[in-house]
Amino acid sequence: MKLICPVCGKTYDKPVQRCECGEPVEFERFKGEPYIGRSVWERFWDFWPVEPALEFSLGEGDTPLVKSRLGEELGVKLYLKNETVNPTWSFKDRGTFLAMSHALKAGYKTVGTVSTGNMAASVSAYATRAGLKAKILVSESASDEKLKAVSVYGGEVIRVLGDYGRLYFESLAIGEKLGIYFINSDNPFRVEGYKGIAFEIAEEISPDYVLIPTSSGGLFRGVVKGFIELHESRLIDRVPALIAVQAEGCSPICRAFSEGKARIERFESPKTIAKAIANPYPPSGNAVLKFLREFDWKCVSVGDDEILEAQRKLAGEGLFVQPASATGVAALRKLELPEGAKVVSILTGSGLKTLNDTPAGEIRECRLEELEKCLG
Amino acid sequence: MKLICPVCGKTYDKPVQRCECGEPVEFERFKGEPYIGRSVWERFWDFWPVEPALEFSLGEGDTPLVKSRLGEELGVKLYLKNETVNPTWSFKDRGTFLAMSHALKAGYKTVGTVSTGNMAASVSAYATRAGLKAKILVSESASDEKLKAVSVYGGEVIRVLGDYGRLYFESLAIGEKLGIYFINSDNPFRVEGYKGIAFEIAEEISPDYVLIPTSSGGLFRGVVKGFIELHESRLIDRVPALIAVQAEGCSPICRAFSEGKARIERFESPKTIAKAIANPYPPSGNAVLKFLREFDWKCVSVGDDEILEAQRKLAGEGLFVQPASATGVAALRKLELPEGAKVVSILTGSGLKTLNDTPAGEIRECRLEELEKCLG
Repeated sequence: MKLICPVCGKTYDKPVQRCECGEPVEFERFKGEPYIGRSVWERFWDFWPVEPALEFSLGEGDTPLVKSRLGEELGVKLYLKNETVNPTWSFKDRGTFLAMSHALKAGYKTVGTVSTGNMAASVSAYATRAGLKAKILVSESASDEKLKAVSVYGGEVIRVLGDYGRLYFESLAIGEKLGIYFINSDNPFRVEGYKGIAFEIAEEISPDYVLIPTSSGGLFRGVVKGFIELHESRLIDRVPALIAVQAEGCSPICRAFSEGKARIERFESPKTIAKAIANPYPPSGNAVLKFLREFDWKCVSVGDDEILEAQRKLAGEGLFVQPASATGVAALRKLELPEGAKVVSILTGSGLKTLNDTPAGEIRECRLEELEKCLG
Repeated sequence: MKLICPVCGKTYDKPVQRCECGEPVEFERFKGEPYIGRSVWERFWDFWPVEPALEFSLGEGDTPLVKSRLGEELGVKLYLKNETVNPTWSFKDRGTFLAMSHALKAGYKTVGTVSTGNMAASVSAYATRAGLKAKILVSESASDEKLKAVSVYGGEVIRVLGDYGRLYFESLAIGEKLGIYFINSDNPFRVEGYKGIAFEIAEEISPDYVLIPTSSGGLFRGVVKGFIELHESRLIDRVPALIAVQAEGCSPICRAFSEGKARIERFESPKTIAKAIANPYPPSGNAVLKFLREFDWKCVSVGDDEILEAQRKLAGEGLFVQPASATGVAALRKLELPEGAKVVSILTGSGLKTLNDTPAGEIRECRLEELEKCLG
């Protein structure tokens, strides 16, 4: 087992969570060949840093790639990778499952996470499934309503009063001391789990661009690594251009990128409808920034109105996503991609999770006796 | 194209919705062989009454069959067919997609349905996806909250004031007059779409029993027909025993079955937490009853406390379902199935859809400075 810091280059031979320099670590690159198999875990067996504990799988991954008409007016071919149909209805399940496989193998009895939304539900679900205890640390401001979908799985939900940004790092330190394995947003095993998204896309098409809603940076890093490993294994001809998408109201990575800075800075007073990607100081921000620079990729931020408009348009294609998941489609209009380009947008989580933020549609009334007139 | 009334036996050579005798019609049985293919639609291509319009598919079907520990204490091997990961998060999408394929081929410009929950969202989503108008007729009592997840797709939602039971039949009559194709709960194409559940189960295991939450009876009829067609095609050795499960507070089929009656009667004042299966006068009730008698199968009803307990247990396995979807597991305890029996329970829809009916879990508070103590 070998882990590398993608920013300073230091290596580790045990599964640390972060580099001494403060940046996230990642596994060395894997090479391999694909196999016939039912699940993405089996088909890409060579590419995981730990043996997937398939007896505890809930069937995460292997999500549909749906053709969309939304790119037509812009002259591009758009495909939607629908991660809302994972077991807890977000992409987080892929990473949680793989990190849980490690936690089980390493003998942990308790796992934890720092999250208020999709990841909290995912870790809670997979922990109870695997017979582990779960400590879910949530922010002061998390709504009771939102936490219902977390506590239902049986994990212990703890509302932490204090600086939520510090909580990410505190949890790793205390977890190490107490023997609790924290599976936070860019945990190295979690990031590896997201490679499956790249693998499945490559099984179906050769995209020119992939649009990735970017918060902590864990998803972005996983998808990049997946494509690079396929390329180094000579399974695809080229790595597509990856585009990080953030909300204008919280875009620390895009800001540092456009200002030519080497490191991200905390985004003060974040405010956006895309709450699932509103991380003001993303722990993998510098690592993402480095990729964007090295490959000459792009970072695009979109406003709340554009996000809501994209959410509506996606619903008009039958896919109801949370606001954060609509940012990719919102960004499409701003990008001026070449005619005929093949573009994938990753739909990260279900709209049912943010129903309170969804405007109510119009509802007509009609008496049964007048139904024919009402329908005519 | 040939349709048959499963109750009186009369046949039709055009796609009528119901028999003159008042009962539902169904397609003649298909025979065929399986193919290699990505989707259940392609692998069982011979078995559909209309060519699936794959360009409008959202990736419905091909859901995970998850091994469960919940049967262990009862000595049975339990598998959970997780239909909550369909595109609108319920099994309805399978039937909606196939019925929509027919509507498109037949040239309809508008489709409709009568529903307040899963089916309303499903028809709304697939109609807008296919460029058709949708008229979604909902009951007087449907909550605004619930209808948000329907109206978001863009279908027209109409609250109908009057007898909701009559609305099913009125909608078919008026729809025929106005050229609106109503895809109600046991529409013959919809029922065919549910066969995919049987096909996918048979691809993985040979179950002895399948537990089916039963409301209108459309799902039950589809799963039966799927297994029978596989058997008649010599693709499986035997048809498993199907068990209809209802809520005690609304169990018209189980009541007629246990009382030895030939026909169901309206269940007065239905009241159950399992709202998605609370149909007091199921339109396919008599057809289901006939199957239960002919094959010597079972009908089991479960109380709300048992349902909520089963919902909690399923969440403890990482699967958060709506109360109606937990009835199968609730029934397991009452059935006294033989030691070692292989049992599948169908999890029909996501728990996120009934979050308001889910009790809030306990949430602790902790100051960041005291986190170590709180976690210890």
